[in-house]
Amino acid sequence: MKFSIQRDRLIQSVQDVMKAISSRTTIPILTGIKIVATNEGVAFTGSDSDVSIESFIPKEEDGNELVEIFAPGAIVLQAKFFSEIVKKLPMDFVEIEVINHLQTVIRSGKSEFNLNGLDPEEYPHLPQISEENVFKIPTDIVKNLIRQTVFAVSTSETRPILTGVNWKVESDRLTCIATDSHRLAMRSAAIDFVNEAKYNIVIPGKSLNELNKILDDTNEPVEIVITENQILFRAKHLLFFSRLLEGNYPDTSRLIPTESKTDIVINTKEFLQAIDRASLLAREGRNPNVVKFSTLTSGIIEISSNTPEVGKVVEQVQSQSIEGEDLKISFSAKYMMDALKALEGLEIRISFTGAMRPFIIRPINDESILQLILPVRTY
Amino acid sequence: MKFSIQRDRLIQSVQDVMKAISSRTTIPILTGIKIVATNEGVAFTGSDSDVSIESFIPKEEDGNELVEIFAPGAIVLQAKFFSEIVKKLPMDFVEIEVINHLQTVIRSGKSEFNLNGLDPEEYPHLPQISEENVFKIPTDIVKNLIRQTVFAVSTSETRPILTGVNWKVESDRLTCIATDSHRLAMRSAAIDFVNEAKYNIVIPGKSLNELNKILDDTNEPVEIVITENQILFRAKHLLFFSRLLEGNYPDTSRLIPTESKTDIVINTKEFLQAIDRASLLAREGRNPNVVKFSTLTSGIIEISSNTPEVGKVVEQVQSQSIEGEDLKISFSAKYMMDALKALEGLEIRISFTGAMRPFIIRPINDESILQLILPVRTY
Repeated sequence: MKFSIQRDRLIQSVQDVMKAISSRTTIPILTGIKIVATNEGVAFTGSDSDVSIESFIPKEEDGNELVEIFAPGAIVLQAKFFSEIVKKLPMDFVEIEVINHLQTVIRSGKSEFNLNGLDPEEYPHLPQISEENVFKIPTDIVKNLIRQTVFAVSTSETRPILTGVNWKVESDRLTCIATDSHRLAMRSAAIDFVNEAKYNIVIPGKSLNELNKILDDTNEPVEIVITENQILFRAKHLLFFSRLLEGNYPDTSRLIPTESKTDIVINTKEFLQAIDRASLLAREGRNPNVVKFSTLTSGIIEISSNTPEVGKVVEQVQSQSIEGEDLKISFSAKYMMDALKALEGLEIRISFTGAMRPFIIRPINDESILQLILPVRTY
Repeated sequence: MKFSIQRDRLIQSVQDVMKAISSRTTIPILTGIKIVATNEGVAFTGSDSDVSIESFIPKEEDGNELVEIFAPGAIVLQAKFFSEIVKKLPMDFVEIEVINHLQTVIRSGKSEFNLNGLDPEEYPHLPQISEENVFKIPTDIVKNLIRQTVFAVSTSETRPILTGVNWKVESDRLTCIATDSHRLAMRSAAIDFVNEAKYNIVIPGKSLNELNKILDDTNEPVEIVITENQILFRAKHLLFFSRLLEGNYPDTSRLIPTESKTDIVINTKEFLQAIDRASLLAREGRNPNVVKFSTLTSGIIEISSNTPEVGKVVEQVQSQSIEGEDLKISFSAKYMMDALKALEGLEIRISFTGAMRPFIIRPINDESILQLILPVRTY
């Protein structure tokens, strides 16, 4: 194997596939990046066996030569060292050559590294995924779907299925749901699907976080293929595979109240900042981070908290409207801030059905997104 | 006490005095920020008893009203909470009022915090320092003096005196020296001094690092006063006190070689980057982070390192000139990179007196700065 490659593209590809590589793996070959040079270009692969990422650099793009192949071939190089080295190389192009079985030379200007490679034959194969049942979503929508739901997954392994995000595909619509049983985030989007297949899968939250970091902010489509136990995201020059979580995701539809007793419309940013300040003194013993919320007259909302040894805080926010019953309720400031940051739009509507029932937060005039929070008993 | 104060200046002052406050203090009052309002403005003080910082906000500056005093007075507020609160307040001005003994109200717009203050009478007094023997150095030079020496202090407490920087004042010149006994950094500068006093003191490295963060990049003078066991730096609206280290700093002048056997002139940046890359594989057992350096023909320098299980690296750099004997020597890549980053100028001169003797690095044509490194035995 011998090729010359543009350094900045090499750095980007290595950085992308590094996101799949774990320093804690027990499989030695997976500490490496697999490099495969063909006459079409060079493919880089990283994997922790749950997530596998392949980034491809073509020989040429938009008339620029990115790679010159002198001899096709393959090698696996230790990811930690290889990624540090490529970042610091002096010239715009880098030559990589396997000289003697697995001995690999990396040259750039007057800099020459000689690394002990690993046998590429030992590297596990990526899943083979059939090309049927492909559906497409613009990249920016995929990123929003992830961002607006994944924060609500459970971080506890007591119910492993809740560490993933439930993706349901039905009638040309994708609905994403995450819950840690104290709050729930839901977002749906139209998809471009040629087929009538239905899916109900659970994708690890960790995989979606990594995918979100790698995807560019474009409106180019991402192709998505779902199989029995894998999902594949295919973007330009990028393959992202994730294992699916096994088990049935709970039916969350009955958790969501369909009627409300108090409806509040409020400016998102003002409300978020008031909650953020109130959370500074929300450190009371049994319920850390819980703030009290109550409706006053003239559309004013009061948010307060108290840490006896330190002090207390009272915030008032003028809402657009309060409809229905007066209300006193307590909830986690963190959950509320997470939900508000995930929502789009200048104003939100919060619909309560009493102080002890879950309440929902939505943007005004947008049914595709919903955040639900369970209150805390303090009043 | 009651005053109204411009929020952004308040945030800046609180952030500055926070640099003196340690969360690990055993003196409860020192977890607080002391606030003193007088008819001239408001002074904020933080201290960990080694370092004390006072930041003053005057009533008015450049025609802008910064503070309005309604009633003079003093209070101590818990630094951790107070600093988080002021950063998040909604309006441009903040009102702070002591209402009931030590109860303090912080108001900004519709936000109201009520904090339990501490008794300002219990706060230790700042050292009283006489105004004799003041000398002046422009702020940017003070910052350079610190930056170019403090990194070389010892981080080990086995010889506590070496955790400080030795400042010597003699004949209108200040010389700063730091060493951890493996390398040494020295920088001197002219000072503006009306007096003939001599000083030889040791300032804790930690204090100088904090001072460097607080000082602005201006060429306004910093006034410096040295006493028996304290040093005071006075900049605009800022007082910075540090305790001095007790004990005698070793005489380092005899460590510095006065003759050389091999002299190399080389581009600073190219040399630094080559060392940086060579350090990536410098992980050999007994001498981690050590690279080998040797002179080749035609003014070429070779830098190499080797980690047996991973691989090796060879870097070549074209020097401007090599004069004197051929040389093979090994040294810590980290010490060399620290030294090179501290130096100014496009080119440096390295003067060696053999493979086992300390060598010195200086900018070309600048006698005011010197870096010294002890080699490591590997050849």
